[in-house]
Amino acid sequence: MSEQALRRLIASLLVVRCSGHLLDAQRRYPQWELSNAELQQLLQLGVGGVILLGGSAAEVSLRTRQLLQWAQGPLLLCADVEEGVGQRFEGATWLPPPLSLGRLYGRDPGRALELAQRYGHCTGREARAIGLNWVLGPVCDVNNNPANPVINVRAWGETPAVVSALALAFSQGLQAAGVLGCAKHFPGHGDTSVDSHLELPLLPHSLERLEAVELPPFTAAIGAGIDAVMSAHVVLSALDQERPATLSRPVLSGLLREQLGFEGLVVTDALVMEAISGHVGGGEAAVMALEAGADLVLMPADAHGAIAAIAKAVESGRLAQQQLVASAARRQQALLKAAALQASSPAVVALSEPDGALAAHLLEATLERQGGSLSAPAAGQLGSQGINLVRLESCLQAPQAVPQLPALTLPERSGWRPVLLEPRSPSPWSGDPEAPLALDRLGNGPVLLQLFVRGNPFSGSKANREPWSEAVVQLQRAGRLGALVVYGSPYLWERLQPLLEPQIPAAYSAGQMPQAQAMALGALGLGAERHAGAGSSGFTD
Amino acid sequence: MSEQALRRLIASLLVVRCSGHLLDAQRRYPQWELSNAELQQLLQLGVGGVILLGGSAAEVSLRTRQLLQWAQGPLLLCADVEEGVGQRFEGATWLPPPLSLGRLYGRDPGRALELAQRYGHCTGREARAIGLNWVLGPVCDVNNNPANPVINVRAWGETPAVVSALALAFSQGLQAAGVLGCAKHFPGHGDTSVDSHLELPLLPHSLERLEAVELPPFTAAIGAGIDAVMSAHVVLSALDQERPATLSRPVLSGLLREQLGFEGLVVTDALVMEAISGHVGGGEAAVMALEAGADLVLMPADAHGAIAAIAKAVESGRLAQQQLVASAARRQQALLKAAALQASSPAVVALSEPDGALAAHLLEATLERQGGSLSAPAAGQLGSQGINLVRLESCLQAPQAVPQLPALTLPERSGWRPVLLEPRSPSPWSGDPEAPLALDRLGNGPVLLQLFVRGNPFSGSKANREPWSEAVVQLQRAGRLGALVVYGSPYLWERLQPLLEPQIPAAYSAGQMPQAQAMALGALGLGAERHAGAGSSGFTD
Repeated sequence: MSEQALRRLIASLLVVRCSGHLLDAQRRYPQWELSNAELQQLLQLGVGGVILLGGSAAEVSLRTRQLLQWAQGPLLLCADVEEGVGQRFEGATWLPPPLSLGRLYGRDPGRALELAQRYGHCTGREARAIGLNWVLGPVCDVNNNPANPVINVRAWGETPAVVSALALAFSQGLQAAGVLGCAKHFPGHGDTSVDSHLELPLLPHSLERLEAVELPPFTAAIGAGIDAVMSAHVVLSALDQERPATLSRPVLSGLLREQLGFEGLVVTDALVMEAISGHVGGGEAAVMALEAGADLVLMPADAHGAIAAIAKAVESGRLAQQQLVASAARRQQALLKAAALQASSPAVVALSEPDGALAAHLLEATLERQGGSLSAPAAGQLGSQGINLVRLESCLQAPQAVPQLPALTLPERSGWRPVLLEPRSPSPWSGDPEAPLALDRLGNGPVLLQLFVRGNPFSGSKANREPWSEAVVQLQRAGRLGALVVYGSPYLWERLQPLLEPQIPAAYSAGQMPQAQAMALGALGLGAERHAGAGSSGFTD
Repeated sequence: MSEQALRRLIASLLVVRCSGHLLDAQRRYPQWELSNAELQQLLQLGVGGVILLGGSAAEVSLRTRQLLQWAQGPLLLCADVEEGVGQRFEGATWLPPPLSLGRLYGRDPGRALELAQRYGHCTGREARAIGLNWVLGPVCDVNNNPANPVINVRAWGETPAVVSALALAFSQGLQAAGVLGCAKHFPGHGDTSVDSHLELPLLPHSLERLEAVELPPFTAAIGAGIDAVMSAHVVLSALDQERPATLSRPVLSGLLREQLGFEGLVVTDALVMEAISGHVGGGEAAVMALEAGADLVLMPADAHGAIAAIAKAVESGRLAQQQLVASAARRQQALLKAAALQASSPAVVALSEPDGALAAHLLEATLERQGGSLSAPAAGQLGSQGINLVRLESCLQAPQAVPQLPALTLPERSGWRPVLLEPRSPSPWSGDPEAPLALDRLGNGPVLLQLFVRGNPFSGSKANREPWSEAVVQLQRAGRLGALVVYGSPYLWERLQPLLEPQIPAAYSAGQMPQAQAMALGALGLGAERHAGAGSSGFTD
């Protein structure tokens, strides 16, 4: 094989990241997202796949066409659209997180399975509509650690049986819609309490425990013919004391290929994550991943560096060329399967409106509710006096796809004045552990408390340090808790809900999007209207 | 004329509003923005123009093609892109507000004129690239009332001479790029202290005063062949004691057409604004505007209702059919001119990267600066202790096109902990007028104070009620004012700047966008890097 052919072969095993926007200036994370010039050059070198993030669905559909044109050949085009394409690409359907169906499964497994299948189908159909052929899901992790900062509500459940069943239904939906799937994060990322975006987590479990808890959803997915498996940046001391799964031969080749018999594509999680890049240089990480048995390298810190390092490893005999040829053949197989799936599933013509009905269905089926209806705050001398205390993960990011959040506008119409908290707000805390909310600063009147909390990468742990349990007790003691709504984390809801007096109106929605807000507040009696600025002032931005 | 032909003629005189997004679900203001079904129907009825807002530049370029296809004929396609196309459509160039050049004009008129011309050219070129043929600018209002909540930094200056000169240079730029312009808001909206989006302002000035202050920029624009003039929703008691300019025959026909001899298109400001819709029904407002002498009706509250009401007024003889024919002919003339301008100016092929160099040039030329460099906060026992107190107009809206604002990320890297304020935050105020900031709640250490304030419609007046002058004095007295940056309003800067001790590092930038933040902080010595998340954690959203 010529040096050029070898480099082209190696390049085909890389999946690089780009923004879904057409222009360099629109990139949200320019340090992670290649410029158009870099991207074009890498695709001409033969890079085999692209992972996209950001941009509207309409823009991404232009973007994927552009990438194919630059590549002059088929590409694996993928995205982390675990919660519907609208989670990443505005204008498509945004669904409540998978764990909501895990909770529903306990009450009504048949309905949960049917909805998980529709969840996958909707996601697959819209992924295709914007030009993707590979959805990086289902998450097969069993979230048995409520403090998990990185998986959490992204998991389909808390037990192997529930995760296996729902992840499988989701995968069937994907496949019926005509796209490839990917089971992740092998061999299981559900029992970690550190975020692998930031640190390298350790799983000290025995093989028996792995086989009982972590592996079943992967075994089920493999049995059902899942197209790809993504490795976790997690150290499994029982199998490999040193290297994380992503770089571990005992895990990827021993356990995944040999023991579980997986023959599809093995792809790493993003190599730029701190769990890897904080320990191993970029080129070396790519070489180690292939050595361990990965076929594709996702988001290498430096694609050119990775190609050079892998080429050197082949030349030195550290990596067998034959192995790379086999990986390329698996990639080819996956592309052929994607084409066959597309041909055998209903044609997707163009971008269409999001499936608001499915989102509503999921939100309704998984909404939890207690107590009475919220009564309007009594009008005092200075007009109505309710306080709508809203805690957001970050006021500069999702779920604020719209300038007017129903969580603010709907209560405002009934006399609840918004007070917005986020981790960088002036402190609402008094310092008194028994009465942590500084009520003197909030003003008088009943409090409608709305908490947006989910175990998000990068921000998951902050809410745990905020004394919301004590605040709920304090407000109730003062007779000032008007109502409580939790959006996102079931774990926070499970902590707060038992503290509530039974008449207090309260709701839990797994979703955080405007549609979820309108529905949860509607359930409390705050007239749900069309989301996004209905009845607001302001008709410009 | 058949009834159908009459209705088609009438429809051609309406300009309706739609979102720049392709999907209904993406609309930010669904109560103001037509659905695709409504839009398609109205365009088939012959509606003559569309004003667009929202969506990325790439998406709008698809949107405008879609509108032309639905209309099956030429359309006036316009937008309020007074501060560059990027002000409304993400991915295009976002420039600092016009008033920044008005200030520069005082120091360097030649440079200001050259930049205003480039400002117009950049805006026109990008408007064309996304399919628009009509820019609703220049603002010809003379902002001689610093408390003006609706014009303010949108004006080119505070005196008739400066506004005339810069607005003209901007118009020349537009024309050279190949798009139509529109002088607004006739006969002058600069001396109002109420927002016509919310109330009807009254201008009690004599005709002599109007001729001395308000009219010269319009006279200059008309003399230079401006294509259109937009009416103001302002009552000019000297000319018409009852009706706002938009509905006033003495103003539109008497003053504008006859006295000033304007022969181009007269278009109303949006009829849905409270100043009109709070007083007159939707259909009647449209009839009155045409009766007064307008050619085009912008954003009627209900387009079908407006067509019916106008048709009835023609049938009853209240409106002469001949007048509508003349208005339609002016619209036709404008479309022909737009085509001619396009043919005679350089071709615009495709969407390109924003003109960051022009934006940087404008920001640099208009940045104001005093004092020394900001030193890093002293590290205390708990690490560094500086407080970066940032006051935003709204944390859920612009200028946050990016999840990571340089105003937060750049100082954080040097040890300044962000505290984010907006009107709905927990109060940072103590209630003590002499020491209004509740410093005990903020914590110890020096304060880097960054204030985002501009006289925005809907939010302009809130900042005036916040005691920032007293807070600056209080922080200085305590030896805790590390630095001050004002983004947006020169009036706030002019109020605070004289209070500063001369060594305090301080800067004023007219722009509020990430580029402006990075530049202003760079001028204070906080290493400016590429905007948007540079060096941040978090590579997903």
